[in-house]
Order: sequence, then structure tokens, then C-alpha cells
Amino acid sequence: MLLGRVLNTHQQWLCRRLADLGYEVSRQICVNDDAKDIKAAVRESLGRADLVLTTGGLGPTSDDVTRDGIAELLGRKLLLDSTSLSHIESFFASRKRAMPASTRVQAMAPEGARALPNPHGTAPGLAMEVAPNPYRKSAVEAGVVPAKTWLIMLPGPPRELRPMFDASVVPLLQEELPLPSKFLSRTFKTTGLGESVVEEKIRGPLQSLVQSGLELGYCARVGEVDVRLAARGPEAAKIVEAGERVLRELIGTIIFGTDDDSMEAVIIRLLTERKQTLALAESCTGGFIANRLTNVPGASAVLVGAISTYANEAKRDFLGVRAESLEQAGAVSEIVAREMAEGARRRCKVDYALAVTGIAGPTGGTTEKPVGAVFIALAGEGATIVRPQFNPFDRETFKFVTSQQALELLRRAVLAGRRKFQI
Amino acid sequence: MLLGRVLNTHQQWLCRRLADLGYEVSRQICVNDDAKDIKAAVRESLGRADLVLTTGGLGPTSDDVTRDGIAELLGRKLLLDSTSLSHIESFFASRKRAMPASTRVQAMAPEGARALPNPHGTAPGLAMEVAPNPYRKSAVEAGVVPAKTWLIMLPGPPRELRPMFDASVVPLLQEELPLPSKFLSRTFKTTGLGESVVEEKIRGPLQSLVQSGLELGYCARVGEVDVRLAARGPEAAKIVEAGERVLRELIGTIIFGTDDDSMEAVIIRLLTERKQTLALAESCTGGFIANRLTNVPGASAVLVGAISTYANEAKRDFLGVRAESLEQAGAVSEIVAREMAEGARRRCKVDYALAVTGIAGPTGGTTEKPVGAVFIALAGEGATIVRPQFNPFDRETFKFVTSQQALELLRRAVLAGRRKFQI
Repeated sequence: MLLGRVLNTHQQWLCRRLADLGYEVSRQICVNDDAKDIKAAVRESLGRADLVLTTGGLGPTSDDVTRDGIAELLGRKLLLDSTSLSHIESFFASRKRAMPASTRVQAMAPEGARALPNPHGTAPGLAMEVAPNPYRKSAVEAGVVPAKTWLIMLPGPPRELRPMFDASVVPLLQEELPLPSKFLSRTFKTTGLGESVVEEKIRGPLQSLVQSGLELGYCARVGEVDVRLAARGPEAAKIVEAGERVLRELIGTIIFGTDDDSMEAVIIRLLTERKQTLALAESCTGGFIANRLTNVPGASAVLVGAISTYANEAKRDFLGVRAESLEQAGAVSEIVAREMAEGARRRCKVDYALAVTGIAGPTGGTTEKPVGAVFIALAGEGATIVRPQFNPFDRETFKFVTSQQALELLRRAVLAGRRKFQI
Repeated sequence: MLLGRVLNTHQQWLCRRLADLGYEVSRQICVNDDAKDIKAAVRESLGRADLVLTTGGLGPTSDDVTRDGIAELLGRKLLLDSTSLSHIESFFASRKRAMPASTRVQAMAPEGARALPNPHGTAPGLAMEVAPNPYRKSAVEAGVVPAKTWLIMLPGPPRELRPMFDASVVPLLQEELPLPSKFLSRTFKTTGLGESVVEEKIRGPLQSLVQSGLELGYCARVGEVDVRLAARGPEAAKIVEAGERVLRELIGTIIFGTDDDSMEAVIIRLLTERKQTLALAESCTGGFIANRLTNVPGASAVLVGAISTYANEAKRDFLGVRAESLEQAGAVSEIVAREMAEGARRRCKVDYALAVTGIAGPTGGTTEKPVGAVFIALAGEGATIVRPQFNPFDRETFKFVTSQQALELLRRAVLAGRRKFQI
């Protein structure tokens, strides 16, 4: 990772999970695949925390040195764990592949460690108590920190680490490192308003709940502002629920989901529930909306077709946009957006069709229609809405923001529950 | 970041840049927006390195504590930098916005620090020599590390940090922390073969160059293996060039680009140079290929249309796939892939049309056509190629790998230079 070849996605994923469980992460460190560096980082971390998680370095190759390094640091022997070994053997057997001898090392565990099953790979995780913790001696003696620290090693591949964290680490934390009091958090995902506007709308009305212990957090990302409500103690659920009521009353219409919901998953769910279908006609977003929706399993039952038409000819031939509309108003215009949506709806025989046409840039803008100009159209039974928007961002941000606005327009129309809609 | 709300992309970007310049990054740390934590992390880092980079915490709000924390740690006064102040003032003036009083703090610099201009935001970067470095006293006295360490603070937003790094930090490093000898690195991006196969093909033949100082590195990512050649010293250029010759001779056909090239940018460049056009007919990739290509500025001159047809009806209506092909062979079949490509080519009147049909999963597989089965077709003048592939991965990986295979098929056909192609 320190060569910059790989993006560190573990940090965000683990921090998010831990925060939602009520644990505070105080530091994240990344070092090279070098036993000396790993030992130094683990030693320092043991001196600092009640829980130390490591990721990666449990594989069978020569740069997988975490297991050995930690065993050495703590002066523990590595012993063969027979359950892990038979898991590894059956992992290869079920794939009809010979088990390389080097893989056997993955069944070794430091004395006293507990193996965490890995259904998606060969290396088990390893959890061990460091007790007494030699790197925290004086603080332990002073009684200001717990006598033992938990050290948990997780495998590097995300598809192995993530299920292992949920299946094995979460129960271990709840059992061995219980929070001093109940903790509850819920995230509400909004779109359409900026962070400062959202904050302005809810901060005052939530003030009294904040004084009663409601923790209020914001996270602004492209096209989206998350509001996180959390509380600790026996009243946690009551406080978060009261917060949610205030939130829904004030900004309910812009909340499109909670916690891990994505806009695309919400759309597929809403349309699936209603047995309704969708078509897309994209110009400037070039397949991005289709791509977001088809990331959701089950999208094929909802999305009949998605037509990306850059060329005017394609807009005419595939969507039936009229030549005179293109000539008179230009490809980026209200009338063309409308005709794209209506054409896609008619030709794909769907309940809804969403169309976008705009100027993604960096070139192609004019004074009248600058880079960032975009028209979003939604055609339903008997009515078509067109929304002009202005998204003067870099190309990828432009695509995301525009797709978010388009999907939000659709979400509200579907929720309004009438095909003949006014929003 | 330690709440897991934001993905840390700085680590990869900065590490990659530094590695390509020949610098070794030994550690990356992430702490909360807390002065005590920041001071501890900077103090430890000063004890460890010749260069310490910090990111973020230079803004005007109460959680921007890096500038103050570091000044305090090093016992330096904060002084107003008048150049920075007038930059900030004109930044607001040019946007016709009033300058909030809180912004003024961004013009403050620790005594002796040099401000790094920020054309994309208000907070300048700050670079300072820590000399003598009090946290490395004994190592300095022993003469094993340099007497001074450079400490550089960069703003958090990527669109501010990245240009500032290239414009100001790189020249500073070259001036103040020159490498002991010339360094050169070049990355070759390949697709189609696994990491171990690539390694097997080139390791032996490159062995003698490695003995003469060629550094050889691999990075396997989804659908792609990067081979990095680097060398140090006066012969660096010669060594890397010799390595490149060996590489191109052995695996030249699978090298699709170098350094920062992406497959989609290569495709758009090749087709633009040849004034050729492209259409897409996607089923299982649902707009992903279109989305990749339209991320490249200038794509609209090449990509005429992209049709994502999930439903059989849409395959028929938009692409002219024959009902009997769909009935007899099924939507995921060689004949349907072929008819999709040929239909898209004919209807969009383009030089090339690329089509994919497959089963992305997680459901929808059968014994005969399991999840991961996919057919990729490329139609050119007078000939259509169809390639069956098997990509039994999770949905997003499936889309990426399939898109990479499809674009690589196209890349080779375009390079082959005949529209009537055999590959």
C-alpha cells in the first residue's frame, strides 16, 4: 500500500463498522510488509488501545509476515491448529486443486490464540488476549486502562475480511469488550440540499435532544449528506427514535434511505415492490445511471433498456427525438430531454423513463449553455416533468451528481404513487 | 476519517507519486481532528523520517487544528503571511463573495514556514525545516540521519492537494531532499494474463538486468497486472529502457498502456486518431462499458450510441436480434452476442460495435450457463468475432473484468488496423 498501488478500503469499512457499534477508533497505521515495521506498529498500538486490529499478511508467501512477526513480538510459539488445517484442506479439495505445501503455514496460530473461521478463503483470522499487556504496564497498574488488550489479525482480501468481521469479530467484541452502556446509531441519507442547509434546518429543533444525550453528526459527500443520530445508555433507543421523528418531520422528503442504503438499491426496491418498469435515455451521463442501477441484484426485472445516445442521429433513430427539436433547441434543451424520455418510455413500453442531456465538459460549453448545464426529464403515464440543473463540476462528479438528481426525481415520483404525477 | 465516513484516497495518491519519484514511504498514520492526537503523530513521525507530510486541518473551522497544533509542538509563533492573505482576499473577491473573518486564520504561518500557493482554494500549504530536529537528536548526533527534517502541511481537499503537490512539493523535494542518485520508474499496464503467468514469462529473461540494478515490481488488480520497472544511478534510463525492450518483446501484445493510462483512455485515443466510431450493446454489464468510456473527455466524438438491453424485447426492438435466436439459443449465447454487435453496428452506422451478454449473478445461473458465463462480440467491417468468457465473480468485479476483456478485444482489433479482422 505504501507504494500507492492499492487503495486502502479497509480503513473506511472497519472504522464505519466500529463507529456504528459504538467503539472509538483512535488511530490507523499503515506500514510495509516488513516484520520490523509491523512489530513496531503493533507494539506501539498495544501501548495505546484496548483493541488492536491488523489486516493482511496472513497469506502463504514470503511477504506475509504478520503472523510470525506478532508471535515473535509477544514471545509465543506458533502451534498447528488442526481445525484450521482441515478447513484449508477441504477448501482445496472442494475446488479440486492440489494444496500447495506453503499453504500449511496458514493453519499455524500463536499459542493461546483463537482461530476465526474464514469461509471465503484459506487463512483464518486470529484473536488473542495480550494479558498482562507489557506495553501498558504503568497505566494498567494505575488502574486507568484495562489489564488486557485484544489483538485480532484479519486477512487482507475484503471479501474474506468483511464477512469474518461481521460473523466473528462483532460477537467477540460484544462478549469480551462490551461497551459501558447500550449504544445505538442510525444514519439517514439525504440528497438535494447542502450540508449547511441541512444543518440549519435540524440543529435548532434537535437541540433539546442533544442536551439529553443525542449525538448528531454530518457527513457531506458528492450528491449526498448523511445525518447520523446516536445515543448511549438505557435511553439510547428512545432518544434516537425521538431524533428520527424530528428529522422525518423536518426533512423527511429528502431522506432517501438509512444506514447502508444506496439510492440505486432504493429505486430497484421501490419499483420491484410496485411491479413497475423503467427505461433510461442517457446522453451526458453516458451509461452511468444504468451502471448504478445494474449494480443492484435484481435490476434486470425492473430496467428494460438503457439507451445512451451521444450522437443526434442516435437520439433520433433510437428514441424518436424529432429532427426539428434538435435543430431548433439543440441537443441540450428542455424539449430534447422531454422527447428522449417520452421516446424511451414508448419504445421500451415501461412505466417510467428517465432522460438526461447536458454538457459534461471539460469542453463543449457555450455562454448560453455552459459546461454543467443539464436537463433531466421523467416520463410517466400521461405526464412528463423536466428539470433544468446546473452541475459545473469535473466530469465524474458531474455524472454522479446528475445521476443522483435524476434518481431522486424518479424516487419521489414513484413514492407519490400516481403515474400521472405532479411533484 | 476514523468514523469511516470518508475514504482515504490521499494515501494511495501521495504514496504512488512519491514512489514514482524514487522516495520510500515508511509509514502512514491517520488520527482524529484533535490537537493532542495530531501533535503526537507529528512528533513520532519527526522522530522517524526525513520528510513528514500532513494532509487536512488547514481550514477555517474549529476542527481544523493542524496548523495551530504543529506551531505549538515546535514552539513557533504564528505570523500573518501577507501574500497568502491577499490570495485569500482575491479568491473571495473574484467569486463575488464576502470573505468570512474566520478565513483569515488560513493566512497565518508558523515562523520560518514557507507558504505553498493554492490556486484551487484558500488555504496555502506550509513547508518548514525542523532543524535541529529535537525528536531525532541521538541519531542526528550519531550522523546516521540528516540533521533536519522537512515538515510539509497540505490542504485536505484532493483538488487542492494534488496540484499543489505537483507544482510546489515536487520541486521542493528535488531541491531540498535530492535523491542520492538519479531515479527512473515506468509502469506497464497489462491485461489478459494473471500475475503469476506474467511473472513467469518475464522474470527469467529480466534476471540479468535485475542483477545490474533493475527493480522489478508487480501489482495485480482486478482485470489488470501492472509491471513496474525502476532503476537508480547514472545508468537508470539505460537499464529501464533495456527492461522495456525485453518486456515488449515477451508480453508486448498484452501491454495496453503505461503509467497513468487507463484502458478507456487508450481506446478513445486510438479511435480518435483513426477517426473511427464505436457503438456498444450491453446486457449483463448494464452500461458499465459506456460509463468507463464516457469518463474520458472527447468520448462523444467516438461513441455514437450505447444500448443496454436487459429485456429480450429490447434486444429485438433496438438491436434487431432475431426472435428465433433468442428462443433457440437463449439471451446468453454466441448467436445473440453476434446479432447484438452486428445490429448495433448497422443501426448506429459505426466502424465497430462491441456487445456483451452474460449472467452477472448472484442468481439466474443454470448448469449449462452458470453465473459468470458471458459472450463478448465485436463487429467490424465484414467480420464479427465472438469470445466466450467465464467470469464467476461478484457483480461489480464481473462487470469490470468483462468490460476489460471487451475493451481489450477492441483495442487489439483497432491496432490490427484492418476493419476486416482476424485476431
